[in-house]
Amino acid sequence: MPKLLILTQEPKEYLNLIQQADLPNLEIFTEFNADCDVVFGDTLRIKEALPRLTNLKWVQTTSAGVERLMEPALRRDYTLTNARDVFGESMSEYVFGYMLYYKKRIMERQHAQQNKQWDNADGGVLRGKTLGLLGVGSIGAHLAMTAKHFRMNVWGYTRNSETSSHVDKYFHPSTLESDSLLSFAKGLDYLVVVLPKTDGTTKIVDANLLNTLPPHALLVNVGRGNAVDESALVNALTQNKLAAAVLDVTEPEPLPQTHPFWTTPNLLLTFHTSALSYPDDMARLFIENYRLYAEGKPLKYQVDFERGY
Amino acid sequence: MPKLLILTQEPKEYLNLIQQADLPNLEIFTEFNADCDVVFGDTLRIKEALPRLTNLKWVQTTSAGVERLMEPALRRDYTLTNARDVFGESMSEYVFGYMLYYKKRIMERQHAQQNKQWDNADGGVLRGKTLGLLGVGSIGAHLAMTAKHFRMNVWGYTRNSETSSHVDKYFHPSTLESDSLLSFAKGLDYLVVVLPKTDGTTKIVDANLLNTLPPHALLVNVGRGNAVDESALVNALTQNKLAAAVLDVTEPEPLPQTHPFWTTPNLLLTFHTSALSYPDDMARLFIENYRLYAEGKPLKYQVDFERGY
Repeated sequence: MPKLLILTQEPKEYLNLIQQADLPNLEIFTEFNADCDVVFGDTLRIKEALPRLTNLKWVQTTSAGVERLMEPALRRDYTLTNARDVFGESMSEYVFGYMLYYKKRIMERQHAQQNKQWDNADGGVLRGKTLGLLGVGSIGAHLAMTAKHFRMNVWGYTRNSETSSHVDKYFHPSTLESDSLLSFAKGLDYLVVVLPKTDGTTKIVDANLLNTLPPHALLVNVGRGNAVDESALVNALTQNKLAAAVLDVTEPEPLPQTHPFWTTPNLLLTFHTSALSYPDDMARLFIENYRLYAEGKPLKYQVDFERGY
Repeated sequence: MPKLLILTQEPKEYLNLIQQADLPNLEIFTEFNADCDVVFGDTLRIKEALPRLTNLKWVQTTSAGVERLMEPALRRDYTLTNARDVFGESMSEYVFGYMLYYKKRIMERQHAQQNKQWDNADGGVLRGKTLGLLGVGSIGAHLAMTAKHFRMNVWGYTRNSETSSHVDKYFHPSTLESDSLLSFAKGLDYLVVVLPKTDGTTKIVDANLLNTLPPHALLVNVGRGNAVDESALVNALTQNKLAAAVLDVTEPEPLPQTHPFWTTPNLLLTFHTSALSYPDDMARLFIENYRLYAEGKPLKYQVDFERGY
């Protein structure tokens, strides 16, 4: 009989949710048990437990990012599945919330009200503007769908996949890698970074890319902090080469009190809140995958240890 | 041959757009000509010209609101069509921009950043929350569609129509009118007012309704200012019976400097900017209707003088 170990902050809540599904032949543990073949939880707790699990077959994470489990010293003799198709909706609310915050001039209108000025200047509409997705996985695909709801143009930059039908135009690295990325950047009103943390994504948003974006562009990073070259971003914002940046992710988290991001003009920090893991969603995802596991079928959302996502 | 009089702020821009459509048998005037049978423009200019048009058959407005042309002293011996199906998209951007502004705690996160506090408290998601539409015409129907994109529940209060399939639950005035409206209000997280200005809509958002909304609810008025009882709203916000109100419309516009709305806590004014009339959209709408007119077919978007919208 499969043995499941739950490694989350609130294991009892997950236990209840999974028990309600009445899964056949499953013994569930909320305290460490070395004999468990299945583990469901967050990457920090899983990473700590990995070396001691003697019978491990499958790990399901509650997060999309799994870079902690990619470290070279860690074992890779198990199937790793991450959380996908659950963060897209929350990410859309967050990303479009911030895009509309700027587009609708919400701050400027409040300042006008404070000064009793009837400020009816038009901020324009998202419709017809171009959103660029740096990375088009399941989250990027959902953002593309929301952008289409608002009748925007959607461009996507990916290594090679073209999975979302809501992306109007794809860009891929060419032999002249920077050219392709800069052609992509040049035409954007909004750049949303949705990349996983891998060696290949570190500082992909560098001075070159930031200088290529139109000066009215808004940068939003909801992927991982490593993607952004910090000093290049501080320079670009300080020199008004970019309208604003909204960073949900940084390195490290939390940021130290002395970090320049706290006080960079037109830079908003949102403290890794863009898509929280809700137990209902995560338990549903685990249950769905467990049914496949119990039947010996291939699992959904498998991570490729070579690619790192 | 039909004669068109354009009565807008930028008649040359509209003239160009309409000429590009190469409409058959149409003579176009941008200066007043009493002989014109067709008028296209804004209600303020149309109202002034009405008495002097000797051959008037059809008026197309560039706005959704036509209350200026409903005044009892004015003639009604022509077909009046207003602008519909063009403001829904802009209204959705505006309404969801403000809903997400509050839901994503955009202001609070900025205050946290100013204080160098890592504020990752969860504000929650729109998904699963209930949006109530007071009025479900073409704008309300578009808002309902966007709410469904974000997987919200949508309730609608209308006189009797049930035209949008994106509304989960309709409420109508019953013999006990207030009961039905209050049952509607009681279950809402968001109340969006999209009513035209008529005798029947004046102060429909009164103390009773405001006290019935849950205290965490957000009120957004994108219809007409007459719908809201001003002192009741000021009281409700001052006494925290309502989380916040976003008013795009007021009476009068602009508001006098002494009006309490300027300084009411948690009340945001946006100065009638939620859905501006863009010449491209308006010209397209006129051209579409003109083709029907030229063929003697019934026009789209006809206003009922009795109902007032």
